[in-house]
Amino acid sequence: MTEDLASYADLDLDRTRRRGYPEAVYCAGKTAEQVTGIAAALAEHAGGVTLFTRASTEHAQAVLAALPDAFHDPVAQLLAWPPLPPEPTGERVVVVAAGTSDLPVAREAALTAQYLGRATDLIVDVGVAGLHRILGHVELLRQARVVVVVAGMDGALPGVVAGLISAPVVAVPTSVGYGAAFEGLAALLTMLNSCAPGVAVVNIDNGYGAGHLAAQITAA
Amino acid sequence: MTEDLASYADLDLDRTRRRGYPEAVYCAGKTAEQVTGIAAALAEHAGGVTLFTRASTEHAQAVLAALPDAFHDPVAQLLAWPPLPPEPTGERVVVVAAGTSDLPVAREAALTAQYLGRATDLIVDVGVAGLHRILGHVELLRQARVVVVVAGMDGALPGVVAGLISAPVVAVPTSVGYGAAFEGLAALLTMLNSCAPGVAVVNIDNGYGAGHLAAQITAA
Amino acid sequence: MTEDLASYADLDLDRTRRRGYPEAVYCAGKTAEQVTGIAAALAEHAGGVTLFTRASTEHAQAVLAALPDAFHDPVAQLLAWPPLPPEPTGERVVVVAAGTSDLPVAREAALTAQYLGRATDLIVDVGVAGLHRILGHVELLRQARVVVVVAGMDGALPGVVAGLISAPVVAVPTSVGYGAAFEGLAALLTMLNSCAPGVAVVNIDNGYGAGHLAAQITAA
Amino acid sequence: MTEDLASYADLDLDRTRRRGYPEAVYCAGKTAEQVTGIAAALAEHAGGVTLFTRASTEHAQAVLAALPDAFHDPVAQLLAWPPLPPEPTGERVVVVAAGTSDLPVAREAALTAQYLGRATDLIVDVGVAGLHRILGHVELLRQARVVVVVAGMDGALPGVVAGLISAPVVAVPTSVGYGAAFEGLAALLTMLNSCAPGVAVVNIDNGYGAGHLAAQITAA
Amino acid sequence: MTEDLASYADLDLDRTRRRGYPEAVYCAGKTAEQVTGIAAALAEHAGGVTLFTRASTEHAQAVLAALPDAFHDPVAQLLAWPPLPPEPTGERVVVVAAGTSDLPVAREAALTAQYLGRATDLIVDVGVAGLHRILGHVELLRQARVVVVVAGMDGALPGVVAGLISAPVVAVPTSVGYGAAFEGLAALLTMLNSCAPGVAVVNIDNGYGAGHLAAQITAA
Amino acid sequence: MTEDLASYADLDLDRTRRRGYPEAVYCAGKTAEQVTGIAAALAEHAGGVTLFTRASTEHAQAVLAALPDAFHDPVAQLLAWPPLPPEPTGERVVVVAAGTSDLPVAREAALTAQYLGRATDLIVDVGVAGLHRILGHVELLRQARVVVVVAGMDGALPGVVAGLISAPVVAVPTSVGYGAAFEGLAALLTMLNSCAPGVAVVNIDNGYGAGHLAAQITAA
Amino acid sequence: MTEDLASYADLDLDRTRRRGYPEAVYCAGKTAEQVTGIAAALAEHAGGVTLFTRASTEHAQAVLAALPDAFHDPVAQLLAWPPLPPEPTGERVVVVAAGTSDLPVAREAALTAQYLGRATDLIVDVGVAGLHRILGHVELLRQARVVVVVAGMDGALPGVVAGLISAPVVAVPTSVGYGAAFEGLAALLTMLNSCAPGVAVVNIDNGYGAGHLAAQITAA
Amino acid sequence: MTEDLASYADLDLDRTRRRGYPEAVYCAGKTAEQVTGIAAALAEHAGGVTLFTRASTEHAQAVLAALPDAFHDPVAQLLAWPPLPPEPTGERVVVVAAGTSDLPVAREAALTAQYLGRATDLIVDVGVAGLHRILGHVELLRQARVVVVVAGMDGALPGVVAGLISAPVVAVPTSVGYGAAFEGLAALLTMLNSCAPGVAVVNIDNGYGAGHLAAQITAA
Ligand SMILES: Nc1ncnc2c1ncn2[C@@H]1O[C@H](COP(=O)(O)O)[C@@H](O)[C@H]1O
Ligand SMILES: Nc1ncnc2c1ncn2[C@@H]1O[C@H](COP(=O)(O)O)[C@@H](O)[C@H]1O
Ligand SMILES: Nc1ncnc2c1ncn2[C@@H]1O[C@H](COP(=O)(O)O)[C@@H](O)[C@H]1O
Ligand SMILES: Nc1ncnc2c1ncn2[C@@H]1O[C@H](COP(=O)(O)O)[C@@H](O)[C@H]1O
Ligand SMILES: [Mg+2]
Ligand SMILES: [Mg+2]
Ligand SMILES: [Mg+2]
Ligand SMILES: [Mg+2]
Ligand SMILES: [Mg+2]
Ligand SMILES: [Mg+2]
Ligand SMILES: [Mg+2]
Ligand SMILES: [Mg+2]
Repeated sequence: MTEDLASYADLDLDRTRRRGYPEAVYCAGKTAEQVTGIAAALAEHAGGVTLFTRASTEHAQAVLAALPDAFHDPVAQLLAWPPLPPEPTGERVVVVAAGTSDLPVAREAALTAQYLGRATDLIVDVGVAGLHRILGHVELLRQARVVVVVAGMDGALPGVVAGLISAPVVAVPTSVGYGAAFEGLAALLTMLNSCAPGVAVVNIDNGYGAGHLAAQITAA
Repeated sequence: MTEDLASYADLDLDRTRRRGYPEAVYCAGKTAEQVTGIAAALAEHAGGVTLFTRASTEHAQAVLAALPDAFHDPVAQLLAWPPLPPEPTGERVVVVAAGTSDLPVAREAALTAQYLGRATDLIVDVGVAGLHRILGHVELLRQARVVVVVAGMDGALPGVVAGLISAPVVAVPTSVGYGAAFEGLAALLTMLNSCAPGVAVVNIDNGYGAGHLAAQITAA
Repeated sequence: MTEDLASYADLDLDRTRRRGYPEAVYCAGKTAEQVTGIAAALAEHAGGVTLFTRASTEHAQAVLAALPDAFHDPVAQLLAWPPLPPEPTGERVVVVAAGTSDLPVAREAALTAQYLGRATDLIVDVGVAGLHRILGHVELLRQARVVVVVAGMDGALPGVVAGLISAPVVAVPTSVGYGAAFEGLAALLTMLNSCAPGVAVVNIDNGYGAGHLAAQITAA
Repeated sequence: MTEDLASYADLDLDRTRRRGYPEAVYCAGKTAEQVTGIAAALAEHAGGVTLFTRASTEHAQAVLAALPDAFHDPVAQLLAWPPLPPEPTGERVVVVAAGTSDLPVAREAALTAQYLGRATDLIVDVGVAGLHRILGHVELLRQARVVVVVAGMDGALPGVVAGLISAPVVAVPTSVGYGAAFEGLAALLTMLNSCAPGVAVVNIDNGYGAGHLAAQITAA
Repeated sequence: MTEDLASYADLDLDRTRRRGYPEAVYCAGKTAEQVTGIAAALAEHAGGVTLFTRASTEHAQAVLAALPDAFHDPVAQLLAWPPLPPEPTGERVVVVAAGTSDLPVAREAALTAQYLGRATDLIVDVGVAGLHRILGHVELLRQARVVVVVAGMDGALPGVVAGLISAPVVAVPTSVGYGAAFEGLAALLTMLNSCAPGVAVVNIDNGYGAGHLAAQITAA
Repeated sequence: MTEDLASYADLDLDRTRRRGYPEAVYCAGKTAEQVTGIAAALAEHAGGVTLFTRASTEHAQAVLAALPDAFHDPVAQLLAWPPLPPEPTGERVVVVAAGTSDLPVAREAALTAQYLGRATDLIVDVGVAGLHRILGHVELLRQARVVVVVAGMDGALPGVVAGLISAPVVAVPTSVGYGAAFEGLAALLTMLNSCAPGVAVVNIDNGYGAGHLAAQITAA
Repeated sequence: MTEDLASYADLDLDRTRRRGYPEAVYCAGKTAEQVTGIAAALAEHAGGVTLFTRASTEHAQAVLAALPDAFHDPVAQLLAWPPLPPEPTGERVVVVAAGTSDLPVAREAALTAQYLGRATDLIVDVGVAGLHRILGHVELLRQARVVVVVAGMDGALPGVVAGLISAPVVAVPTSVGYGAAFEGLAALLTMLNSCAPGVAVVNIDNGYGAGHLAAQITAA
Repeated sequence: MTEDLASYADLDLDRTRRRGYPEAVYCAGKTAEQVTGIAAALAEHAGGVTLFTRASTEHAQAVLAALPDAFHDPVAQLLAWPPLPPEPTGERVVVVAAGTSDLPVAREAALTAQYLGRATDLIVDVGVAGLHRILGHVELLRQARVVVVVAGMDGALPGVVAGLISAPVVAVPTSVGYGAAFEGLAALLTMLNSCAPGVAVVNIDNGYGAGHLAAQITAA
């Protein structure tokens, strides 16, 4: 027995008109049945792209049941429909992952920006422990209109990048690290206290939020 | 071998007389055997309704072993016996869930209020990210004598609702959200700091407590 | 040189119509000049009572400069204008202070409820360390439609009171206590975790919020 | 291949002589092989009783492999050898569990005190939500030389008991409760801030520590 | 005796060339003598504007000793030299203060953006307790390329604004509020957990950082 | 104009009968007038000793106004009346201060125990940084029936003492130390986690509570 | 299909030249495929030893797939390649584990120091609860140029050792302990607040970091 | 009347023999009279240098009363006696202050190392916001046997320095920064989570501890 959509969701279909960006479906905490119902409903209404974030394997199957041709990136736990991102408009978004372990969140950010209409670059494994690595990319970084920097452990990279460029940095703390990282709290605080101004902080592991913010900053 | 009830429980059978509301059985941390024993004992004594909260599948089976016709809502992890709520008295309780992911807690609140004798309404998925959704329900909200608002992430909805109506708001933070939600702490603090007065806060994910409080406020 | 009111305040004059209770002016963080300006403006518009909360001596003088006959309680750091509370309507509010040191907050709660139109009682120094004291008031507590309980240190009194009566308890943690009280955090957590249901928690030391909530619950 | 005991343990065999109470083996974090090795070594040396605490099923099997007749209480996760507690000396220890869910910790406390040579009583499910339950035991409590009170959620019971009796109260917070219990932190802070003096606090869920302390206080 | 500049400062004179924005002098923790020395040195080198942030009265006098015609806003604790902001370039920055008590931080943000070359608007006292106030400004907000929203207590306003517009929101938590605001922590967490995407969070009370970030986002 | 005692205090005069120890007056948060009123009232009723804790200079004067011959220790912020402690009964209490900076709290503990009828010893400045100092007192420590250990910073001394003796240790964390001491939190956690059993923890800087607990443990 | 190394890693091959110590691969958060890819790449380039830390069974298999003769210690979750540590240079490193449960972290520290070129000693189970145990090793400790001390629960041992010797102590808190250990936070704070100077603190459970630091301090 | 030294202090005169470094007197929390008494006593016994740390103006006068020719640095709140540091032995210590506001703590570290017998260098105002500043000192940093790095706000500098050199870094977080610096907590966590190994962390603002540790590491 399928429950009525209205008993569990009131889709913000107006969002694209109001904000220019469509609603995304946060899958965590939703049942597979609810996700299927929402996917089916969005399929009928959405003018633009719909994203499904934090999707477990089970959630992904639920989306694909309603939207079989949807794009699915299991590492980023992201689905998108229609499967192809729009033609890029606005300016490029550069996404940087401090370490290999930060890659899932960085990918979620880059994909989000792409599906919201931006061209993106991805730079990986350039943490401050070996400064020459990020310094080797300064030229590219200086050309960006926004740089998303994803980092766990000490979370020091966004501040270092911000000090090198004129564009704003969107900083994403990750939950990567030893005990006193406290699941991303240490990196979060580092980023909020960046001694270089120009660092915009989002929630721990929130690649979607970072990609969205970057897309807004680089809008045409 | 069944242990004697007295070795693990001292039922507050006096509660209905003293408070007007019966004791509920908090199942978390109890063995199935203990829950069965309590259910059996309550079946003999209870004047009114008995609720079993935070009941896992195993706990539910334990209750149903002693009270086969008990009502069971697995989403809300709640059981009630006798299975039918009493005829409503007092005034209506409106329950609002900010997002779909907050629905299990909202349902626990609504069911609790029903089994304690109130008529209830449930409004779902009307978070502040799309303000028009909650504003579309203002008329109903203004007629309520109390509104229970369940919200995770930023926990902003209860304060917004409180600013629109004259009735008190019972605010329930949920553990839904990204890392810096800290399992509901962020929403809890938001609610405690609501800049609109009239917000009564209960524990994280405590739908039972919210429904109970709402029933007390709306008592005849 | 006096700054224009519009440059620092946008009074919520609509609040009485919308909510049935007038805006209150939170003085902390405002300059004396701003408070005077707001007081003068409210004097012209307000249909009902205006409260000024968290008013330092300097703030109080600023209010009295604009509204010389305003009521002022320095212990509760509260001013009210017009100086006389309205004729009580609705049901009585009982306010309980666990210790003498909790009295300023308890008084803020009781005065707020009075100025919002309720009759009040005040019971003082009946903490759980000597249980016979609160037990000596059970009869009065059982007659109340709401009880505001103000407590610091362990914050245990609201839960104990809630377990004795059928009416809801509004619990106010105070910042009174030794180091591990962490400025009211310990009492706040106790109240949120009350094992007796029926406890509505407000912010630390927020007597105004408690009195407001109690007035709403007891409205005619 | 068995590793040499000296490579992972340096038993405090001197403890009984020095302190009057034997070393206990904290099993959490030890391999089964290590626990077996320690059990075998203690079997040869110990003058008195040896306790094994926080023993998982696997740990318990490891102990029983070396000491087949050891006593084992799976609920309290405790083993003792030799299996029979000594003849009681000193004064009685009364152990109180606020709720049924606190029973495993309470049992760990009671058994520890017994194996260290004390007679014990156990009172269960007498939380402050129904005050008459604990008040019904006041006479027994007043005769005790020490009372161990185990409580989760609000952790209010130890302070209430302390206010009723002349003997010291050993308070054990448990990790039982909803989100804002923060795994026992709320109860811990309540107990540290007890407004009744005479409350000795131990670590969260540390029934062993409470039973040991109680045995010391009641020593002959 | 004046100490040598090099013994306490190594001015980042390269910053304007590297980042397009000059170094600011964070006065907190510096002696008056050091601030004077830095001001004197910057007077000789700086190509553009120099800002002095978090300047106490004593710090302000120290700056004015070296740069007598500097601009000084004591409420925002900010000084700027040369005293006139540059001709605006880029796009407008709208700054919103939720309450009157948030005005000092909002002013610091607006002045920073102005001295970094942006035209600004300032909207005051439009917190979510009276939603019609912010809704009355939606048209202006929708025209902005970035909106800075400053809020204490529940910190709910930035998320509400973000849900209404397409531009990014720079959110600044303030330390305004009752005990459980924990000096801005509650508002900070709310903003990080905003259920509307598009919220860029900066440090508590950091109006300078917000204005800087807004200037970067709106750069020509 | 003096307010009526009943409007701010409900003395627990029954406490001596009920618990064997008289009520103490916690002065922090009380006005001088209230303290005088309470002192005057207690003078008429108290069967035994009355203690006034956390007394500022102003509080002390208020007590001495009503009870001119009261004993006053400004370092411990304690007053006692009648001025002479009773003849000691029960067993000796040994109080240990880890550092000189912990002395005020240690003195509060020792004086409390004395006024509740115990003989006391005081050992000072024997922290674990120079282990030979505490080891030089082992003989005295081993003769005690209870040892109160007061320590700030790392709070390591109580656990070390507990490991050396058979008697229980009452551990008092103090707020002494560098930043990451977090006003006594570090020492508090150390004591709760003592790897030697037998440590009873009280609130930060709570010398009164420690002395009271020690007196109870050593009662005849 | 194997992804290109450059898409997920940018190896810091320069580290040995720059720092004298090679990069280590932190396996947590990496896929098995990524670890294999990194291992293969390092096999071609590395001049000295490569360590793989925090390696699960699956990670270990991934390393061994590329480097079949690598050394693997499953308890320490460490792999090293080439499998034999270099001939020791510099001075000896003494590693101390307070309890048996701290052994995995202690082993990670000792092995790291060995593979970075130091001779090591390991002392186990000498916590402060039985002080004679660590005192029995003072002679060896006094000969060390650095002592690594690993401890959970109260974390008191490093400060005690520091007070006995002239060499620096590297302190490693572990996540071992009861609830209020808060996963190593209690031990971490103890170590940061050590009342004996000379304690260098690293992250919770970070044996690798401790061994690395010790190797640097003892470098020839 | 002067109290006897033994009533408040038990000087660790053995420390120089045992550890090679003399006891330092932590003045915070001590009375001026106590500090004078200790200074007088140390004057008679001390073989080497005595340091007085955290000395307020009043404390400094107390030291100078007993030791009129003592060295006094009011910025570092440090006194030393005899006034001249010993001839340097061992290796150089380089101290780095990230910002001007971190200078007092950096100076405390450098002076401590000097009085314990080391030659020191001091580099100031080279935070990561302008990376070229620290990179300009790499040569000097690479020659050091230890580098002390003092930083507030994001605390990122120590990790960056550690990644550039082979010597260990002693990292000192300071309490400098905006609200979410939480008095140094943010910088402390950053340092503990440094993604470059080789960072030894000490307490917030603890320049003395850092200087002491550096002196031990560089001992001859
Ligand atoms: N246990 C550890 N603690 C701190 N850093 C580590 C640890 N293990 C490896 N690393 C460092 O973490 C970095 C590896 O991160 P990744 O690039 O994600 O492999 C390298 O710079 C290592 O030196
Ligand atoms: N969700 C809940 N929140 C707070 N109290 C509860 C909840 N569910 C049950 N209780 C109360 O917890 C007590 C049950 O604890 P126990 O004695 O362990 O069954 C009863 O007094 C219930 O009224
Ligand atoms: N004690 C209080 N607790 C919560 N809100 C309050 C309090 N006092 C005043 N307020 C509200 O705070 C707002 C005042 O903020 P402001 O605009 O800065 O005056 C008003 O909406 C008041 O209703
Ligand atoms: N409010 C602020 N927030 C963050 N960084 C700031 C602020 N004010 C100044 N700064 C930066 O802090 C550094 C100043 O530190 P200092 O070297 O101590 O002056 C400069 O790089 C400034 O750009
Ligand atoms: Mg890497
Ligand atoms: Mg939704
Ligand atoms: Mg009282
Ligand atoms: Mg129960
Ligand atoms: Mg306002
Ligand atoms: Mg000392
Ligand atoms: Mg052991
Ligand atoms: Mg600087």
